[in-house]
Amino acid sequence: MLLDHRRRAQEIVDHSTTETDTDGGLTEPFHGPHQGGIATPPQAHAQFVGLDLRENADRAMVAGLLKVWTQDAARLTAGTPALADTEPELAATPARLTVTVGLGPGVFSAADVADRQPSWLRPLPAFPIDRLDENACGQTDLLLQVCADDPVTVAHAVRVLTKNVRSLVTVRWSQRGFRNARRSHPDGTTMRNLMGQVDGTVNPAPATEEFDRLVWDDGSLHRWLAGGTSLVLRRIRMELDTWEEIDRPGRELTVGRTLDTGAPLTGKAEHDEPDFTATDRYGIPVIPPGSHIARAHHIHDGERFHRRAYNYDDPPQPGQTSNSGLIFASYQRDIDTQFLPVQQRLAEFDALNQWTTPIGSAVYALPPGTGPDGHLGDTLLDTT
Amino acid sequence: MLLDHRRRAQEIVDHSTTETDTDGGLTEPFHGPHQGGIATPPQAHAQFVGLDLRENADRAMVAGLLKVWTQDAARLTAGTPALADTEPELAATPARLTVTVGLGPGVFSAADVADRQPSWLRPLPAFPIDRLDENACGQTDLLLQVCADDPVTVAHAVRVLTKNVRSLVTVRWSQRGFRNARRSHPDGTTMRNLMGQVDGTVNPAPATEEFDRLVWDDGSLHRWLAGGTSLVLRRIRMELDTWEEIDRPGRELTVGRTLDTGAPLTGKAEHDEPDFTATDRYGIPVIPPGSHIARAHHIHDGERFHRRAYNYDDPPQPGQTSNSGLIFASYQRDIDTQFLPVQQRLAEFDALNQWTTPIGSAVYALPPGTGPDGHLGDTLLDTT
Repeated sequence: MLLDHRRRAQEIVDHSTTETDTDGGLTEPFHGPHQGGIATPPQAHAQFVGLDLRENADRAMVAGLLKVWTQDAARLTAGTPALADTEPELAATPARLTVTVGLGPGVFSAADVADRQPSWLRPLPAFPIDRLDENACGQTDLLLQVCADDPVTVAHAVRVLTKNVRSLVTVRWSQRGFRNARRSHPDGTTMRNLMGQVDGTVNPAPATEEFDRLVWDDGSLHRWLAGGTSLVLRRIRMELDTWEEIDRPGRELTVGRTLDTGAPLTGKAEHDEPDFTATDRYGIPVIPPGSHIARAHHIHDGERFHRRAYNYDDPPQPGQTSNSGLIFASYQRDIDTQFLPVQQRLAEFDALNQWTTPIGSAVYALPPGTGPDGHLGDTLLDTT
Repeated sequence: MLLDHRRRAQEIVDHSTTETDTDGGLTEPFHGPHQGGIATPPQAHAQFVGLDLRENADRAMVAGLLKVWTQDAARLTAGTPALADTEPELAATPARLTVTVGLGPGVFSAADVADRQPSWLRPLPAFPIDRLDENACGQTDLLLQVCADDPVTVAHAVRVLTKNVRSLVTVRWSQRGFRNARRSHPDGTTMRNLMGQVDGTVNPAPATEEFDRLVWDDGSLHRWLAGGTSLVLRRIRMELDTWEEIDRPGRELTVGRTLDTGAPLTGKAEHDEPDFTATDRYGIPVIPPGSHIARAHHIHDGERFHRRAYNYDDPPQPGQTSNSGLIFASYQRDIDTQFLPVQQRLAEFDALNQWTTPIGSAVYALPPGTGPDGHLGDTLLDTT
């Protein structure tokens, strides 16, 4: 099957011309110590695809799969058609495409490398706020995260990456997300979610010592993971109908930030440090202790992580007006020490919980990046 | 209900600042002789929403609905929050937003103006190639077509326009479509669909005598419709799995155009006129008579119309790899004389039919544009 694809691909003319004078021709590097799509400035569009290995999968098949994905991703992100690309013209617009591969617990058992599975790679504990739907964003064996500034590029890349491995995996779910279009706002503007809130203010800046420390694994526990990280992916439905019954002051007290600039209620600008001790003249905290930012705030530096969320807005169910929410994606070295304490605090109490419902939850190990001679996951599988 | 919204809206601060230095601040005019979103250079994102009037709807309610939509659309397209906008910050990025309103047959009966219903405003005849799903893109009483270069803008506008009229209408279906991102390619580049084909080459150029003649109604049959037009909206599923079994020469013979430039097989450049009489040295037509462009080609000038299609790529059904296709949208003065003969020819035979399946079909009258003192549909309803 795969060999067939490879053979057929040889007949396809290699269209390596990209639109170099336009944003469509912009590329993000594929090879390197880390996978793309994590520290990469967020592209406008993302698709998260959850896949399961077929029953007979073993280490050789997992390695074969990861080799195909590596080869295809290296080409597509450069604006070059994949080897089995039957629509090569659609590949000529990389638009900052990144392809990020995640490994769920099922990969470790199938490939017989359970001893290399990080301890944090297991489903999050059940939270009372959860209303999980396995088919919305349940735990799968594998994840593809495909991001680009052009939605056609994303559609093409996902199609190529999934169809070429049909004999090895099945798709369980596929989630499309979006942020503002490239150039809609000045570079570096924090996104807004569909509740209208500035979302993602407290994020370590990529390529800083802090980011490296919080996000990239150093291989001290699992050598294969050095340069990799973890992903927590949660699908969070927004109850917009009831949210809209809340007036602006009520919303701002719920979140702890102003709606217009995203500044904490104790500050003037978005990135001002919130002062959780400040009180008004009646002695009442300016930022309510139950507000989202008060509950989400890290108690110590080790509770921080890197968020890279996307909005979703799917066709409404019959009788409904909207089906909207957030595809929450956070990246951290250690889910248990960095993400989980914060999530537990929020699950216990967060004023915002009344208008948000987690409907999907999955975790993945994201292997390190690779060079031109390797493939994603080779350090895990001892294959090259 | 609506009065409540209006009252609440008064309390919301009017955020009319737009991002003027970025693409997000670009606007398309709302007021004028024609509705936007028809001759407008296609934006990157579109959402088509099919809505049905509630059972008790009468002319006053239809007029009320159209007034609300007109008022909200006039503001949103200018980058100003709607009157009942609970997320005003999301309105500050118009990104060339257009809102286009379509009227299905149900509006004419509900508003008791059946004598003003154009003869072409009725479901298309059943074609043997159709596999229609009423919930995919069936005929509804009303249509909202919302287009912008930013997907957040589209999501916000659709939310505002649908939630504000919940007491009057229900949403039956909602379809998101996309083209390449703004600035991915040079302006004016013809889009490609997800089969990889250049799609939409033969289109009259907006603001020409030809476009005006083919698209805009002159009011000779129905005075109220002067400056309006019609929309044929069809949801066409692409059978990508079998399409990919066809090699490039086979694909090019199916369509009648080359895949790389979109030139007709008898030409060198995309916009070269196809020569359907040209034969090769064996006397075989260079463009097969059964190819898509040979069958779709207008037999006389009056069979032409304006296309403005969008790709769709939704989560696949269980066991499938893709769920992709085209949201075909064509605009013409008269569906019966311009669109139908071409569609009948294609339904009868088109080599491409083997890989495309119409799963939705609806038609709408698009009333003319309006000025600041009127509302969409006022010439139909004799209301202002």
